Amino acid sequence: MQIVVVGSVALDTIRTPFGQAEEVLGGSATYFSLAASLFGSVGIVAVVGDDFPRNYIELLSSRGVDLKGLQTVPGRTFRWKGYYDYDLNTAHTLETQLNVFQDFDPVIPEEYRDAEYVFLANIDPVLQRKVLEQVRGPRVVVCDTMNFWIENRRDELLKTISLVDILVLNDSEARQLAGHPHLISAGRKLLEMGPSRVVIKKGEHGVIMISDGTFFSLPAFPCEEVFDPTGAGDSFGGGFVGYLARSGELGEETMRRAVVYGSVVASYTVEAFSCERLQDLTVEDVERRFSQFMEMTCFSRE
Amino acid sequence: MQIVVVGSVALDTIRTPFGQAEEVLGGSATYFSLAASLFGSVGIVAVVGDDFPRNYIELLSSRGVDLKGLQTVPGRTFRWKGYYDYDLNTAHTLETQLNVFQDFDPVIPEEYRDAEYVFLANIDPVLQRKVLEQVRGPRVVVCDTMNFWIENRRDELLKTISLVDILVLNDSEARQLAGHPHLISAGRKLLEMGPSRVVIKKGEHGVIMISDGTFFSLPAFPCEEVFDPTGAGDSFGGGFVGYLARSGELGEETMRRAVVYGSVVASYTVEAFSCERLQDLTVEDVERRFSQFMEMTCFSRE
Repeated sequence: MQIVVVGSVALDTIRTPFGQAEEVLGGSATYFSLAASLFGSVGIVAVVGDDFPRNYIELLSSRGVDLKGLQTVPGRTFRWKGYYDYDLNTAHTLETQLNVFQDFDPVIPEEYRDAEYVFLANIDPVLQRKVLEQVRGPRVVVCDTMNFWIENRRDELLKTISLVDILVLNDSEARQLAGHPHLISAGRKLLEMGPSRVVIKKGEHGVIMISDGTFFSLPAFPCEEVFDPTGAGDSFGGGFVGYLARSGELGEETMRRAVVYGSVVASYTVEAFSCERLQDLTVEDVERRFSQFMEMTCFSRE
Repeated sequence: MQIVVVGSVALDTIRTPFGQAEEVLGGSATYFSLAASLFGSVGIVAVVGDDFPRNYIELLSSRGVDLKGLQTVPGRTFRWKGYYDYDLNTAHTLETQLNVFQDFDPVIPEEYRDAEYVFLANIDPVLQRKVLEQVRGPRVVVCDTMNFWIENRRDELLKTISLVDILVLNDSEARQLAGHPHLISAGRKLLEMGPSRVVIKKGEHGVIMISDGTFFSLPAFPCEEVFDPTGAGDSFGGGFVGYLARSGELGEETMRRAVVYGSVVASYTVEAFSCERLQDLTVEDVERRFSQFMEMTCFSRE
């Protein structure tokens, strides 16, 4: 297994200005793994209830996602219900039912423990560290988080962040965690917390990536039709880490390409509800949009 | 004369979270010409009152800006008073005194009439057309505008826009003028109004440029210290048109570089109040930041 992700597998009920979907496949580990599976082998560490639809299991398997680390326990699967207004950058939560996720205790299957790339999706930072204790010296640990943990588990989160290589989060989270309104200064403060690299997702305004001595700024891929932004951030993570695994390199040029691949996969995710667009996405689709992205952003000196 | 700009020369009173300045040099034609003069010869068509400080005239002259087209008439100079909150993207107007600008009738000096590059800064679209009637077949006409004209002179504005080559405006203006919330679709609608190219400025989120068959997206230069955003848009225009004049080309590659040069000059403008930073900016400063910009945004295929 090249890549391991720990996070949520969920049933989402979503409303956007363009439609709605009920009890559809969602969760951070789901989006991440569907995205990463375009680039390499990926295993999920997560939990679902015994109500989890069989066809969603089959969907993940059919895309090559390894499910040995997906626990099925008695009870109901984690559910999220939310909506977006025309400002599609902001998700409004109507209801979160943790259900079986409440007692989730991540157990990493033996086959996953030598994975070189670990993605700690947005879950309790204590659980994120439990994963790190079980893997054997991964080459790269990438961590996501969200405002809930920043507000309610700050100390635990800082402990986790001090152990990871790359921190991926969105702009408001970066400002909140760093306690600084200016995004680049916030990014610098986050580097002082431990990671050697910080990737800040700005939704429709693109991504910036900062390390000691480097700065990269990429606009968003111009999506003409955004139907449902759910999972864009985790798809970004999957494309980003997936490409790192495929490349095997960790230099600045590779990291930049990983940001572009992450953005490309996310740009597909938002074109349809739930994971619909990711279900039949091909490597060729991704490569084509990478080329378009390059064409849309490149310039040269005279 | 390579470049002619028609617009305002003003005395601004500005407050930002970082300080304030009273009756300082401002106005769209001022910022544009100081920016453009880094690249080529530029003449101003504007009006000031007999109270306009002599040292501001000297400042413009010292930067090589030609003032034959700057009328001085009895009365008070145009004044603008406004402030910015921490959202530095939005200017809040406290007071606009048109003064001598009220009866402004642009007269293009004979030496300006063969200028190849004409910039119609944000003024009454009827006056913008008066300028076009006096010049002799310029190679490129670039036009800016603002929400006031979109709301109050829509028909006149559409007449002017139908006559220009490149429309430059900010994102909210683009949405308002096109009547479409989605920026790229809005840009496409603006192309149907006549211009062959539309440049949409998104402040801290960069710039997009659209023509029939091309799309370019550039993030903003990462300014760590923004003191006063006044004049950023007109400085962008000056850098953009100035570079076109210096280059002499009009292809897509040149247009993209022009967007980068415009963004670079604007990034300097916002680092200090009023035109302070533009007063001693050098071509070397601009070229250095162009290279940094390239370094911060470039990526490649494997």
